[in-house]
Amino acid sequence: MNDTFLKACRGEAVDYTPIWIMRQAGRYLPDYHKVRSKMTFLELCKTPERAAEVTLQPVDIIGVDAAILFSDILVTLDAMGMELTFKEKQGPVLPSPIKSQADLDKLIDPDPMDKLGYVMDTISLLRKELNVPLIGFCGAPFTLSTYAIEGGSSKAFWNTKKMMYQAPELYHNLMKKITASLITYLKAQVEAGAQALQVFDSWAGSLSPGDFSEFALPYVQDIITALKPSGVPLIYFANNCAGLLDLTPKSGADVLGLDWRVDIPKAIDAFGDDIAIQGNLDPISLLLPEDKLEKRIASIVERGKKAHGHIFNLGHGILPETPPEKAKFVVDAVHRLSKR
Amino acid sequence: MNDTFLKACRGEAVDYTPIWIMRQAGRYLPDYHKVRSKMTFLELCKTPERAAEVTLQPVDIIGVDAAILFSDILVTLDAMGMELTFKEKQGPVLPSPIKSQADLDKLIDPDPMDKLGYVMDTISLLRKELNVPLIGFCGAPFTLSTYAIEGGSSKAFWNTKKMMYQAPELYHNLMKKITASLITYLKAQVEAGAQALQVFDSWAGSLSPGDFSEFALPYVQDIITALKPSGVPLIYFANNCAGLLDLTPKSGADVLGLDWRVDIPKAIDAFGDDIAIQGNLDPISLLLPEDKLEKRIASIVERGKKAHGHIFNLGHGILPETPPEKAKFVVDAVHRLSKR
Repeated sequence: MNDTFLKACRGEAVDYTPIWIMRQAGRYLPDYHKVRSKMTFLELCKTPERAAEVTLQPVDIIGVDAAILFSDILVTLDAMGMELTFKEKQGPVLPSPIKSQADLDKLIDPDPMDKLGYVMDTISLLRKELNVPLIGFCGAPFTLSTYAIEGGSSKAFWNTKKMMYQAPELYHNLMKKITASLITYLKAQVEAGAQALQVFDSWAGSLSPGDFSEFALPYVQDIITALKPSGVPLIYFANNCAGLLDLTPKSGADVLGLDWRVDIPKAIDAFGDDIAIQGNLDPISLLLPEDKLEKRIASIVERGKKAHGHIFNLGHGILPETPPEKAKFVVDAVHRLSKR
Repeated sequence: MNDTFLKACRGEAVDYTPIWIMRQAGRYLPDYHKVRSKMTFLELCKTPERAAEVTLQPVDIIGVDAAILFSDILVTLDAMGMELTFKEKQGPVLPSPIKSQADLDKLIDPDPMDKLGYVMDTISLLRKELNVPLIGFCGAPFTLSTYAIEGGSSKAFWNTKKMMYQAPELYHNLMKKITASLITYLKAQVEAGAQALQVFDSWAGSLSPGDFSEFALPYVQDIITALKPSGVPLIYFANNCAGLLDLTPKSGADVLGLDWRVDIPKAIDAFGDDIAIQGNLDPISLLLPEDKLEKRIASIVERGKKAHGHIFNLGHGILPETPPEKAKFVVDAVHRLSKR
């Protein structure tokens, strides 16, 4: 197996900088559309053979150094008993958001082998096929709480912050319940065969440093602490994190993901000597002509070499409009430019 | 006249920390709704008596130390010849976005006294009524370019970055044309009586530091350089700027606005000894109970005292759902807590 990705996560010497791409299995690939056209998004997540098929596609087509389970961060809320649908163009909809302790009491602490067995089946299938490491994942508690409270995507997170500020006990109760279910879920993923785990905190960057410390970070710490004994590398990706560089290292993660707005040397300064970094090319850079794109890749590769470890990635999910050949160009360029 | 705001902008000694609030004239005030219900948003901007009336409301009702002209950053594009409407819930719509040099050639370099005379009339009316300084403003070239290219609000700025990357000459031509019209517009505002100017870069935080340096910052510098001789304090507010703290001081502005994600001491470190700061309470904090809200205000007031100058503000526009009495509470608390 190609274990370059795992070595880089651990800060060990590598022959070249490994790369995977957030949302690498997804809408920019015509092969994905072929599978997806036959079922809804959530059906695809819940059909292990098909979820495994689309997980494998980018490994074959663009040659990344790690696979990431095809799934969605919101399946945990679904498993906890929240109704969930995905509407075209609109994104996720949870028609019964959490507004009170009574709403929260209705949520169950799901047995992942029962309610999320399809994820474990997908992982088992994948481990038989893959020759690169498999990354499992979940949403971070704060990010999941925004969906649970807002009932879908949000701009200002008005209801979430309202609950934080006006009903902090209820908010913390929700966070505890989500965190507990994420811990059993991630443990089950490792048990099934996940070789690294990423916690996606897509909306962390909407919080002031003070609110992040008080309401979000402690629950990420709980997850990292609980999963540490599993021995698999733990990656924490807080999106829009330039204002949180002093705080994200306190998560305890082995690897911290960076969005494209962060200057890599500043992150290295803030993170110290034993945290690897992952990132952080602006996904829209894939529109650049190849010569200019290559310059940006080279700059990130060079800066990343000064880190404890560096996994190349985009600074956010690959955009659906990206030509697959440009994604392959990035993978090849990272390998070529980083060769030791 | 109460000139505390102007003194703080210049880093001079003040008796207390002055405060104004972004979007202080607007939807959270019932008095505003009364005026607005009789006309469209754009009609209100273009009717000097009514625009002046709503500009004055927050000075009387919540007691801020500066007034800001009631207008919109997009009136410049309207004056340049781009069709513009505001749709309820959806925001601004520009049905003929810029896609080519031919589209760009159609835009005029407007004489502000002709095409934006209503703004100057509003300013003249206000100067007769106000006992606090009047802030004029414009959108920053990058932010305006996103509306001109996307045809409205956007999430990822795909078309804007596409033009930057694939047709950089066209993009720079657009930025030059917008910048030229902003300079004559701001000069006319000062001539009419504006006593400070703020440049709003609402979407600057979507750019990587490299792209910000190459495509956005030089045009802000051009504006600041051109307006410096006017002698009025120049404020540059780049939203979501935690990753740009090394770069925004290069704008040349006298005051830099901070969104709520930025830790004030870090900004002071990055900005040095001759730039004042403005900000940065999270607008959603106004939902907190008064005791907790006051603690946050006190913390910002204390941190701000270490800056060259500090103007208290929210870290983004006040939210429409905010009770006006909470806005007044913030103004009073800032005055009380900062008394020297």
